[in-house]
Amino acid sequence: MQQYFIKQKLENPITITDKETLKHMFAVMRLSTDDEVVLVFEDGIKRLARVMDSERHEFELVKDLDENAELPVEVTIAMGFPKGDKLDLVAQKGTELGMANLWAYPADWSVVKWDKKKLTKRQEKLEKIVQGAAEQSKRNHLPSVQFFATKDNFMQEFAQFDLILVAYEESAKTGEHSVFANALQQLEANSKVLLIFGPEGGISPDEIEAYQKAGGLLVGLGPRILRTETAPLYALSAISYALELNR
Amino acid sequence: MQQYFIKQKLENPITITDKETLKHMFAVMRLSTDDEVVLVFEDGIKRLARVMDSERHEFELVKDLDENAELPVEVTIAMGFPKGDKLDLVAQKGTELGMANLWAYPADWSVVKWDKKKLTKRQEKLEKIVQGAAEQSKRNHLPSVQFFATKDNFMQEFAQFDLILVAYEESAKTGEHSVFANALQQLEANSKVLLIFGPEGGISPDEIEAYQKAGGLLVGLGPRILRTETAPLYALSAISYALELNR
Repeated sequence: MQQYFIKQKLENPITITDKETLKHMFAVMRLSTDDEVVLVFEDGIKRLARVMDSERHEFELVKDLDENAELPVEVTIAMGFPKGDKLDLVAQKGTELGMANLWAYPADWSVVKWDKKKLTKRQEKLEKIVQGAAEQSKRNHLPSVQFFATKDNFMQEFAQFDLILVAYEESAKTGEHSVFANALQQLEANSKVLLIFGPEGGISPDEIEAYQKAGGLLVGLGPRILRTETAPLYALSAISYALELNR
Repeated sequence: MQQYFIKQKLENPITITDKETLKHMFAVMRLSTDDEVVLVFEDGIKRLARVMDSERHEFELVKDLDENAELPVEVTIAMGFPKGDKLDLVAQKGTELGMANLWAYPADWSVVKWDKKKLTKRQEKLEKIVQGAAEQSKRNHLPSVQFFATKDNFMQEFAQFDLILVAYEESAKTGEHSVFANALQQLEANSKVLLIFGPEGGISPDEIEAYQKAGGLLVGLGPRILRTETAPLYALSAISYALELNR
């Protein structure tokens, strides 16, 4: 059944006001009276809803659904600004794979420089991609998207996390293969995890030192060299496998 | 160091003849005498090679390198023909994530119909994508790409596999979450594994029945609905995590 994220205050019945959502509901899906959809408000509970009045965009919330599609831990993916539209892929696939937040920061070896105007535009585009992917993959929460203007701003957020992992190609090359698995096995439910990925050129020695000082663990993600946009998809899949399937 | 797959007979010294490879070596990378690269022949051994003569494209094979980036099991990804360029993404990311073979078959619910001419063109394009990804991710073996004209042709290949897993959304929906993990834990090294994915519309009941009769196990890949091109990336990442990192 079609699912929509609703950013309005929860009330029953509810009149939907977001234009994009209305367009999809009544122009694309052609909903009419008594059709049912799933509405998800900010509390993350999926609710079965019935169209009461398709002209006035009014829905009755029929009942709560006991469906949880969220990872048992809250994973924030932080990417050094990559080139091209790689963040688009991470936004879509990362959302399908359960990430809670997508962050991007200007890494030492980021080639692209984005000014404020460009950042705002990029963020809006990514938020749309995330919303589409979250509705299709039936998430309970809409991942947030955030760009940091400086690396200091980014690192000021580190204190809120229970675990910080830094994907480091050199760790993979030297055959390190247990830090990631050990860290996952010790995670408690609802932990906040930050996963840091470099841009195409990798993570600089200064950054590695700073991340380690801030408590970050360097992890390898297997023996193959993964592109910057592939590594977060690997990590999210591994987290799902470790915490959702292999328990 | 730059790596190239060489489809010629192994000899030392060797004169490289493939035009695309030569273009990358001498036009893009501008190799000159005494520069070093890694050459990988069909035996999967990486060899350090030195340019002896850049005019005649002659290399000396200096020594074998003890580097293995292959998954401990041989994984074949079989996709029901999907729409658009989704196979391109699976070819590139699947190669980075260690797949051995990429197969595509006409599924009951495949929307696209590809004639023979189109199939040949698609296959050539995918082989190029795979080669680029295999060189960048430092694989020892070049994944093969194969299209099947009929589902019967596809299913005739099932006998060669030690394990056949069918990614089935309905399994995920009912909360099944241990078949995949149990199957991976029982895998022996060098096993041949077939992973079957449906097209966008999913796998038909007839197909499910036929695959199960042929020994296939239905597996869920977590509680989120994954797009057809995302599911194989999840499965490959999980296999790497289970067999390479969490051991």
